[in-house]
Amino acid sequence: MLDMFFNPQAVAVIGASRTPGKLGHAVLHNVVGYGYRGTIYPVNPKANEILGLKCYPSVLAVPGPVDLAVVSIPSRHVAAALRECGEKGVQGAIVISAGFREVGSEGWQREREIVAIARQYGLRLVGPNCLGIIDTISSLNASFAAGMPRRGGIAFMSQSGALCTSILDMALADNVGFSRFVSLGNKADADEITFIKAWEHDLPSSVIMAYVEGIDRGVEFMQVARQVTREKPIIAIKSGTTDAGSRAVSLHTGTLAGSERAYEAAFRQSGVIRARSVEELFDYAIAFARQPLLANDRIAIVTNAGGPGIMATDACERAGLQLAAMETETLATLRAALPQAASVLNPVDILGDALAGRYSLALEAVIRDPNVGGVLVIVTPQIMTEIEETARAVGELSQTSEKPIFGCFMGQERIQAGIDVLNQYAVPNYRVPERAMAAMAAMVRHRRWRERPPLQIETFEVDRDRVRAVLEQVRSMGRLAIGDIEAREILEAYGFATPRTFLARDPDEAVHYAHEIGFPVALKIASPDILHKTDLGGVKLNIMTAQDVRAAFELMTYRANRYVPDADIWGCLVQEMVSGGKEIIAGMNRDPHFGPLMMFGLGGIYSEALQDVSFRIAPLDRRDAWEMITEIQAHNVLRGVRGERPSDLEAVVEALLRLAQLATDFPEIVELDINPLTVFEEGRGVIGIDMRLVLA
Amino acid sequence: MLDMFFNPQAVAVIGASRTPGKLGHAVLHNVVGYGYRGTIYPVNPKANEILGLKCYPSVLAVPGPVDLAVVSIPSRHVAAALRECGEKGVQGAIVISAGFREVGSEGWQREREIVAIARQYGLRLVGPNCLGIIDTISSLNASFAAGMPRRGGIAFMSQSGALCTSILDMALADNVGFSRFVSLGNKADADEITFIKAWEHDLPSSVIMAYVEGIDRGVEFMQVARQVTREKPIIAIKSGTTDAGSRAVSLHTGTLAGSERAYEAAFRQSGVIRARSVEELFDYAIAFARQPLLANDRIAIVTNAGGPGIMATDACERAGLQLAAMETETLATLRAALPQAASVLNPVDILGDALAGRYSLALEAVIRDPNVGGVLVIVTPQIMTEIEETARAVGELSQTSEKPIFGCFMGQERIQAGIDVLNQYAVPNYRVPERAMAAMAAMVRHRRWRERPPLQIETFEVDRDRVRAVLEQVRSMGRLAIGDIEAREILEAYGFATPRTFLARDPDEAVHYAHEIGFPVALKIASPDILHKTDLGGVKLNIMTAQDVRAAFELMTYRANRYVPDADIWGCLVQEMVSGGKEIIAGMNRDPHFGPLMMFGLGGIYSEALQDVSFRIAPLDRRDAWEMITEIQAHNVLRGVRGERPSDLEAVVEALLRLAQLATDFPEIVELDINPLTVFEEGRGVIGIDMRLVLA
Repeated sequence: MLDMFFNPQAVAVIGASRTPGKLGHAVLHNVVGYGYRGTIYPVNPKANEILGLKCYPSVLAVPGPVDLAVVSIPSRHVAAALRECGEKGVQGAIVISAGFREVGSEGWQREREIVAIARQYGLRLVGPNCLGIIDTISSLNASFAAGMPRRGGIAFMSQSGALCTSILDMALADNVGFSRFVSLGNKADADEITFIKAWEHDLPSSVIMAYVEGIDRGVEFMQVARQVTREKPIIAIKSGTTDAGSRAVSLHTGTLAGSERAYEAAFRQSGVIRARSVEELFDYAIAFARQPLLANDRIAIVTNAGGPGIMATDACERAGLQLAAMETETLATLRAALPQAASVLNPVDILGDALAGRYSLALEAVIRDPNVGGVLVIVTPQIMTEIEETARAVGELSQTSEKPIFGCFMGQERIQAGIDVLNQYAVPNYRVPERAMAAMAAMVRHRRWRERPPLQIETFEVDRDRVRAVLEQVRSMGRLAIGDIEAREILEAYGFATPRTFLARDPDEAVHYAHEIGFPVALKIASPDILHKTDLGGVKLNIMTAQDVRAAFELMTYRANRYVPDADIWGCLVQEMVSGGKEIIAGMNRDPHFGPLMMFGLGGIYSEALQDVSFRIAPLDRRDAWEMITEIQAHNVLRGVRGERPSDLEAVVEALLRLAQLATDFPEIVELDINPLTVFEEGRGVIGIDMRLVLA
Repeated sequence: MLDMFFNPQAVAVIGASRTPGKLGHAVLHNVVGYGYRGTIYPVNPKANEILGLKCYPSVLAVPGPVDLAVVSIPSRHVAAALRECGEKGVQGAIVISAGFREVGSEGWQREREIVAIARQYGLRLVGPNCLGIIDTISSLNASFAAGMPRRGGIAFMSQSGALCTSILDMALADNVGFSRFVSLGNKADADEITFIKAWEHDLPSSVIMAYVEGIDRGVEFMQVARQVTREKPIIAIKSGTTDAGSRAVSLHTGTLAGSERAYEAAFRQSGVIRARSVEELFDYAIAFARQPLLANDRIAIVTNAGGPGIMATDACERAGLQLAAMETETLATLRAALPQAASVLNPVDILGDALAGRYSLALEAVIRDPNVGGVLVIVTPQIMTEIEETARAVGELSQTSEKPIFGCFMGQERIQAGIDVLNQYAVPNYRVPERAMAAMAAMVRHRRWRERPPLQIETFEVDRDRVRAVLEQVRSMGRLAIGDIEAREILEAYGFATPRTFLARDPDEAVHYAHEIGFPVALKIASPDILHKTDLGGVKLNIMTAQDVRAAFELMTYRANRYVPDADIWGCLVQEMVSGGKEIIAGMNRDPHFGPLMMFGLGGIYSEALQDVSFRIAPLDRRDAWEMITEIQAHNVLRGVRGERPSDLEAVVEALLRLAQLATDFPEIVELDINPLTVFEEGRGVIGIDMRLVLA
């Protein structure tokens, strides 16, 4: 659990300063000021005593052992100080000092140096260039933040120190509590993965919340997060998602997949809940921290106002949740308990003159209903509304209920008294129903994630050696992309059916093979030097007669020789025309952080003009592959519209898995797509028509 | 301006009560309590004096003239009271009393009665079943709300009285001010349209804000709103948008269009800005109320924190805005004014240690830049941040700038002092950058709306009489849907090209016509009694030979006679097969409130499986029709993908306009679609292949 950071016995504050306003003063002030019970050693060669504590010239001069050093001295002195920490046997250092990687090459050099020192001594580093760490459990505020947050169930880390100050300031007013609060800074050593791991079994932390700008070790992040999210929600903001690069979507499969797609896929595949703003981050975190998970996605709404009830209903559907349909018995109970003008159907409108008692009656009835997964209580401050008493009633019920209850006490001036009471009972309150529903939907997604069977990677028997040989040959010829015949070989080696194809060296052979295949056939120029065959008329489809085969062969080879004079022309491929079926695209683009980003879409303009494509990071299991298929908007087309028979989706799933295996087996492949991959009706499988593959 | 409601000289409070806790007491208390300078007459037969005012047994007993009556007595007595008001010459009545339409048929009856009385006496009604009206300009609080809002530039109306209480409560704490505040209640007389009209030239009201559940007079609403929004923004929540009905999208054109679609189209076509939650309503309203419109959609961000700057950048792009690219001169000024480590490129990061002075320098530079349309100032509360001084600097600059400035002071506890200062300067503050960007985007949309040329309806020369005759004939035969031949007639009468078609009464004639048209041809059973021809094999396409024409004719007529024994079989239509082009769908579904809801989409599965369709309410102008086309995701397909020539979009525009004219000319048509309408490449026009039409 990284006790040296969160529960050290002794802390040295290196750079402790006597001067208020200086960082080194603020840090010591914080370490001293919030009830930390360990030993505190200010370190400053120019002082004897600061804030009543004896001061030491260096950490080596400290008499007792030191677990943690908090360093806020000019960056050029940090290395020396850390070396002393190493000699002293200090286990962890929080380097608050700036002036490292973020200021250019000299800073990079300094950062590399301190990492080397840390490795040498087995010293863990947080930072540099960070706000510090706050731990409310050990009451240690090792930061220069202005204040101490409340104790609570949220463990938070942030790649932006400045954002930490805003989050602390919001949390103080919103009554949100933290267990651990970490400013990651430059992440020279400890990073997201370090803390996610540390907090996996950390009892005081029921939710992990993160602000992330970039994840360097993507594959490991996914592995760790995938495991931790089975126990504990991780909610994260990933910013920097809309850079022009990732949006500049071209017609090419590869470039459809920007890095934003990789993060989206990585978070989803590892169960990380994504928040789109700091408000959403809080909204979700307090839901998880304060309430049990929703039993199901069916919500009951109890309200003293029709309009907000309707808005909540809209929001419920928009968030992907459902309005619970309640049992006849529940409705009867409600009917008996409520005035005649009340609406007992969900949303349950208990009318504007509802006092706390009526809220209690209604809430007790709906929360007992087996169809209800969770309850939203809407309170508008009408003239007779008992705001605090109602909040208390809601709070009391939430203490005994195993289902979550969420407040939507709408207002601020008068309603705040109610919100304060809800806070005492740990009932999260949302200012508008839309935000409450979004938080509940996040809970439902998390629950489903936890119920999902663990990743089960299948391995198909494939001819890996054959692919290795093909790729080696391609590279030995100085090429990075493969040709037709090579594509066929690779596809076949990985168990894909391909159209019948023969290499004809002259027109006679071409006619011979055409007869053997049966008309119509396709003719394609065969040359390792011509990749964009279509551009120079090197592809002709649907040839119906021997005469046309001959003519096409002659024209193609003539053109190829003429326009690419040095090309090695092998002849033409004569290929079976695949008829029927639907064209799909399955591809891969290797993400620098997360590895093979698989892509799926329908052929034709669906993927291109509509950008209707789905992404997952390999390795995949069957369930991932299924989701890739069903996630695209046009997937109905594959289910069979207008009385068509459904396509062979099982075969598509397998194709995606086999392609993922290929991408995983050969890290040197950076781009890959089968386009088109033709899928036939159920039971008839798929056939790979064309494939593009690029090596690193 | 409805002065009887907003600026009456004398107000009678009918049902004024001595007993605190009663509505009639709260109302009188409010009328008396906030500085209203007119004369106040409590009316209550059982009291002589209330709150120090002489009380009258009835409004008729009041000595002087009365402009406004505020009525809070049991519903069964309201009619009599209003009759007395009428006799007295009262001009307006706010009926707070509940017990009308909302309680069932007896209430409906009472509501009809009071409307009749009002009409008889020329008395305007607000309500019944409402919270009342608050006017901060005349300081009249004619409601039972708990408190009086601040004075400000927002005129608000709400169909939900309970929501009013929440909004008032939020506004008090958020320092949001209102000019007029109206609870519409049941809208028995005065409704949204009444007040939008009244506020069009109301100087104190710079923004109109509304909560709407349903609009009854849709066409008039659009007319009025379209005019008013040219001067003044209208921001509205429309709730009840996700009812199962509007979501149950079937394969049929007509049912793709739910009422939600109609509202969406109506708001857009009349310039009404739609908010999705009460928070968004406020976010937008304070932007409009406090700042000038954005000069353009290019935003500059000035921040003391990198992370929030990145989040703001993401939000900027997501909201459809752009980051301003600034002039070289601006960059030079920034470079000279800021520390070296600062980032002068947008987002301008002036670093965590930025004091108020540095904010001023940076803001002055960016706001002068001609590329910048508006500025977002992000402040995180770092240890040295001068929160209030920075807010003051922002406020001062906003006083002299013609461009809007928005605050994003992120936090709450410490940052609140800054937000309070911003409020003094009328600079709107948003808690997170995402909300600020959304508000700015709403401003940009509004500005574009105001710059849009006014609606210009074209009228095409058409043969209206011929369509009238066809429709009359259809109805005279007791049918509600039309057949093939009728569809052709209607299409041609409205200037649509159609495939060449002949009615053949026997196989010989069919063969004759097939030769005249040229193969391939299509054959379709011709019978006014068979609408779903495909279902019984009544359509055969691509017939290549005379022999097949004969066979198809015989089979079709045999089947028709057999499966629809009583059908009147005219023979078969022999039709030209249209080849090439792209299939689109243009349709209309008459909305009960807004009239003809036009629909456009690509043919095939685009409209069905992908629901990729656009909607507008007729009448349309060219610009509307263009937008319908470009709004669908698949519109690239019509622009020509993969080297195809672009489709004749001008012809599609005209087709939509002609169809809209048909829908407008014949209100008895409730559903209509041309499916497919084939569009050829540029300059080659469109041709209507098939049409479905249903009469009321």
